[in-house]
Amino acid sequence: MPNTLYLPELREMLAENDADGLREFCTALHAARTAEFMEGLSAQESWAVLQHAKMPLRTEIFGFLDETKQLEMIETLARQEIAEFVGHLPPDDRVDLLANVRPWIVDELMPLIPTDERRDIQRLSAYPEDTAGAVMTTEFARVSEDLTVGQAQKRIAEQAEELETIYYLYVVDEEDHLRGLLSFRQLVSAMGKPDTQIGDLMERDLVTVNVADDQEEVAEKVARYDLLAIPVVDDEHHMLGIITHDDIIDVMREEAVEDAYRSAAVAPLDEGYLETHLLTLTWKRGIWLTILFFGAMLTALALREYESVIESYVWLVLFIPLVISTGGNMGNQSATLIITALSTADIALGDWWRVVRRELLMGLLLGGFLAVVGYFCALPAAPLPWWPTRLLTAMVIPVTILLVILCGTLLGAVLPLLFRRLGLDPAFMSNPFVAGLIDLVGIIIYMNVALALLPSQSGGL
Amino acid sequence: MPNTLYLPELREMLAENDADGLREFCTALHAARTAEFMEGLSAQESWAVLQHAKMPLRTEIFGFLDETKQLEMIETLARQEIAEFVGHLPPDDRVDLLANVRPWIVDELMPLIPTDERRDIQRLSAYPEDTAGAVMTTEFARVSEDLTVGQAQKRIAEQAEELETIYYLYVVDEEDHLRGLLSFRQLVSAMGKPDTQIGDLMERDLVTVNVADDQEEVAEKVARYDLLAIPVVDDEHHMLGIITHDDIIDVMREEAVEDAYRSAAVAPLDEGYLETHLLTLTWKRGIWLTILFFGAMLTALALREYESVIESYVWLVLFIPLVISTGGNMGNQSATLIITALSTADIALGDWWRVVRRELLMGLLLGGFLAVVGYFCALPAAPLPWWPTRLLTAMVIPVTILLVILCGTLLGAVLPLLFRRLGLDPAFMSNPFVAGLIDLVGIIIYMNVALALLPSQSGGL
Repeated sequence: MPNTLYLPELREMLAENDADGLREFCTALHAARTAEFMEGLSAQESWAVLQHAKMPLRTEIFGFLDETKQLEMIETLARQEIAEFVGHLPPDDRVDLLANVRPWIVDELMPLIPTDERRDIQRLSAYPEDTAGAVMTTEFARVSEDLTVGQAQKRIAEQAEELETIYYLYVVDEEDHLRGLLSFRQLVSAMGKPDTQIGDLMERDLVTVNVADDQEEVAEKVARYDLLAIPVVDDEHHMLGIITHDDIIDVMREEAVEDAYRSAAVAPLDEGYLETHLLTLTWKRGIWLTILFFGAMLTALALREYESVIESYVWLVLFIPLVISTGGNMGNQSATLIITALSTADIALGDWWRVVRRELLMGLLLGGFLAVVGYFCALPAAPLPWWPTRLLTAMVIPVTILLVILCGTLLGAVLPLLFRRLGLDPAFMSNPFVAGLIDLVGIIIYMNVALALLPSQSGGL
Repeated sequence: MPNTLYLPELREMLAENDADGLREFCTALHAARTAEFMEGLSAQESWAVLQHAKMPLRTEIFGFLDETKQLEMIETLARQEIAEFVGHLPPDDRVDLLANVRPWIVDELMPLIPTDERRDIQRLSAYPEDTAGAVMTTEFARVSEDLTVGQAQKRIAEQAEELETIYYLYVVDEEDHLRGLLSFRQLVSAMGKPDTQIGDLMERDLVTVNVADDQEEVAEKVARYDLLAIPVVDDEHHMLGIITHDDIIDVMREEAVEDAYRSAAVAPLDEGYLETHLLTLTWKRGIWLTILFFGAMLTALALREYESVIESYVWLVLFIPLVISTGGNMGNQSATLIITALSTADIALGDWWRVVRRELLMGLLLGGFLAVVGYFCALPAAPLPWWPTRLLTAMVIPVTILLVILCGTLLGAVLPLLFRRLGLDPAFMSNPFVAGLIDLVGIIIYMNVALALLPSQSGGL
């Protein structure tokens, strides 16, 4: 919902060309809030308002606008003006933005963007999606070892307004190899000794990521080492860029949403729920729903094999949903525990035997407990007047529950480990795939237990 | 797995009391890596190594040690020494740590901790878990409006080593009301004008959180405004503390794991998968598994009501798992989409009608499609020789699929909205609760469709 509180005033100021008022509007509030108040304006109006903010602030407010509005501005305003403005945007943001602009407009804009920035855009957009290279920015504070603390301070003071982050200084040699790092905190602490060389103060043991690393690994490292920003290097340890804390937070949010979708078998969406076109959303759900539907069809085929058992013992049907859902729930719990533990590096592949042993033990405990409960629930259902037979007949239910729970927990634990072993994302083995598989296995177990424990239908009671 | 690479060297240095070597070990690497190399040491050995690091570094390395090791050190080492050390730990970390130390040891330690720090611990531990107050630290750079840029720089240079974050200066009045904020970047940019007053430079439009706010809301705000740290205030806008970017990342990871567990009906764990005691884990899974088990028992009771239909048309049984799992999958997708959209503020409660309309439309599209597929799968199963009757009989399946999918999508979409409306966490309405409910509803729909469309069993073919 756009915030319309200031809209009339803003439009009036624009009509009267009230430069002071508009400048005041742009500077008084946090850039994100300024952007919120501009949501109701058209692309042209927003652009006119932004002209009253000086450059670093202008790009900052722009960065907080809705992506739809940003794209509209880029696509509809005068190419030359926009091209110049794009040159000022943070390198990582403008690449993400241009990726969503219609290609023919990008083709028109690119030649108008200043050479350095154009090359930077081309370089950055070459990195595959979801890698460190695609998330990093190329603007960071770069110093050489032989600079003194005093010189470095002056250099930073000059660049402070333009750089996205000034909280780490990266020390590189003449060939741009990353040699060390000095935090702003260290620089400030050393203010009393302005002649000390950076090389004597800097940290040499650095936490870095490779440009080809997956963004999830990057987030994991930043979280583990409590970093504000992490340097991105290539295989020869050349300094290519940095990834800052706010981008890491965005990556984590993105991954959390993706994981949630995956756990519900929805293909990832590019936009929000309401923004995604109904047919796109239907498609993204439909493909998986259909795959799962055909998977579930296998349970029908399996049951068909046992039609004669069912005909003889119709009461068995009552417990079909119970048996398969209990196995599915147990498998789902195991899969989620293992997937989460793998993704937080809480367990490694080498722990597989400990994991399997724990899961089997829990399966025995929980399966045993629910089997007992299930037995007492099954007793009144088994329609046999003679108690000794009834006691035996009802045993089908607890035996099935125990076996299904053991199978569920094993499948749930082993499949994610197997997927990781094969180099695939274990998260794909989350429910409802595991649940679907356990439905099928559960049915087969149930019917075979019934065949084994119950008198055959020809000689049935 | 502990990193044992340096263990022999470390033990040798300890045995020989090699102060230079140990000092070198503590300072050469990133604190997190130093901590990794110490993992194989005992609590006593670790403590002896740490004595060779100066104070801010000592607490930093300690902060990266395993929590088990930290607790062991606190519980087994000389009380007086530890109490003094605890006084130097970051305020937020030591409260979290002491919460896990055995109470009688805390009682012994507390009187030995310096008065100011002891009061701070008591104050912080009074805030309820998962609120801003429980996550914040009380150490931050505090300045007054009438300080000049030059004075502020000097003040910060003195405090730089001790404060957890120096990237924002918080401007407060005499009564500690938060008046404004100056980023370090602004302070550095203003280095050329050392006589400017802080009050003239500071930002007055601040993004703050209340001390009682939920940590998820805090993370949401920090992400939206791209902040390094967010100030925490009380109802009278007194400045109480700050929450820094690394704590926000921890909160997000914690919440992501919690959401994953919730979506699989596992009660949140306090420790990792392998660290949690087997019986604790069994209990945390067992309570929900049992609740879901009794929920599933309702499907058995429901089916019992329709035993005569089943006896007449045993082939209906084949499609029970298919029908309920399809409804469950659809409901699960809807629930996940709506819960995610609610948590990312992509939709609000006011959008409920748009959501319901979209879900119904998608339900019609997907349900219609799968109904057609299901019809052709059901045709060979319905065991009737006369084709016209067969065509009609098999209609039970598509009609059921369409209705179950519509019900599933509606329940999945509406229940999270309803939970939000009631002030409860919508995430509780994720699968497998929705799935369990849809199992029950699906069975009832299926059997009633069968009753409506099939000739009654007494007059059956």
